[in-house]
Amino acid sequence: MSKAIVTGHRNPDTDSITSAIAYAYFKQQRGADAIAVRLGEINKETEYALTQFNTEAPVLASDDVVEGREEIILVDHNEFQQSIENVERFKITEVIDHHRIANFETMDPLYYRAEPVGCTATILLKIFKEHQIAIPKNIAGLMLSAIISDSLLFKSPTCTDEDIDAAEELAQLAEVDAQEYGLNMLKAGADLSEKTVNE
Amino acid sequence: MSKAIVTGHRNPDTDSITSAIAYAYFKQQRGADAIAVRLGEINKETEYALTQFNTEAPVLASDDVVEGREEIILVDHNEFQQSIENVERFKITEVIDHHRIANFETMDPLYYRAEPVGCTATILLKIFKEHQIAIPKNIAGLMLSAIISDSLLFKSPTCTDEDIDAAEELAQLAEVDAQEYGLNMLKAGADLSEKTVNE
Ligand SMILES: [Mn+2]
Ligand SMILES: [Mn+2]
Ligand SMILES: [Mn+2]
Ligand SMILES: [Mn+2]
Repeated sequence: MSKAIVTGHRNPDTDSITSAIAYAYFKQQRGADAIAVRLGEINKETEYALTQFNTEAPVLASDDVVEGREEIILVDHNEFQQSIENVERFKITEVIDHHRIANFETMDPLYYRAEPVGCTATILLKIFKEHQIAIPKNIAGLMLSAIISDSLLFKSPTCTDEDIDAAEELAQLAEVDAQEYGLNMLKAGADLSEKTVNE
Repeated sequence: MSKAIVTGHRNPDTDSITSAIAYAYFKQQRGADAIAVRLGEINKETEYALTQFNTEAPVLASDDVVEGREEIILVDHNEFQQSIENVERFKITEVIDHHRIANFETMDPLYYRAEPVGCTATILLKIFKEHQIAIPKNIAGLMLSAIISDSLLFKSPTCTDEDIDAAEELAQLAEVDAQEYGLNMLKAGADLSEKTVNE
């Protein structure tokens, strides 16, 4: 069986980290050998979400980790300069994204799923449902976190009705109140405790 | 409401013509102002399919026809050099395709749906079903024609199980026998009657 890595973009945000986790889980449920990786440090907001939902961060995409894995699935990005170094060394088999397409090309046909919504997690929820794969509570919580992060708690102009509906559905699965949890998560991300008085 | 054209590639084959017809119909059912256009002459095979299923060919994408239509939906291709001249003058809102991605980019997020299957019609069938939009008999027949054409009656190495299943489902909707109809269509496409004895 071919082995794949699932990765979000460099300087990862909550959507990139949690979408890698969620989609790697989805692929595993479908019988694939896929692991989530990350291309940079976890930020405070994402750390809060991972802790709240008791989930480990994806491993850093070191040479050791990607060794022997020939396929790559990109989530939350498509542009090569935002992706893993020398992304062309992998076969890009899938992209799940919500951004414009640029600086992207493949040698072969692939599965490319982009929708003009506010967050990758909103598309992922659809994909889970299309294949009738149940979303575990912790992954639902992480996907909800991604929507809250990308939409700034539904206030961003990129936030669509689909994102709001998806968040509602995910909040139920995660058994949290989206507004209350969301505010706490955004606050954790904006945490000023490490800044000096002068900042 | 924004007005869109739906087009396949230059030098259109049966998949490009019928996918433009089918997806324009789908968009209309969803309330959009979308018309199918074509970028070149109809070949004999496609003409046979259109006649069998009593459907008019899309109009040629002349300046008059595209005037006032700001949006474009690409089916069965994505590369700009295969598309309408100066495709950048339109806003590309959607792509439904089964080819590799190259020479393609957008200014804005869009709906991009590519799957590594043998024919655009196979993806379109999925989209109709996802939105629970019924496929009229004639459009089902045209979509079946596209799969038969792209897969050379299921013999091409690009033909997947999904294409075969889709063709079966479409043949039922179209009330034809896929093998019998398919052979006749391919024969019509290979028609030598216009060739001279020396050819
Ligand atoms: Mn992101
Ligand atoms: Mn995102
Ligand atoms: Mn074609
Ligand atoms: Mn095709």
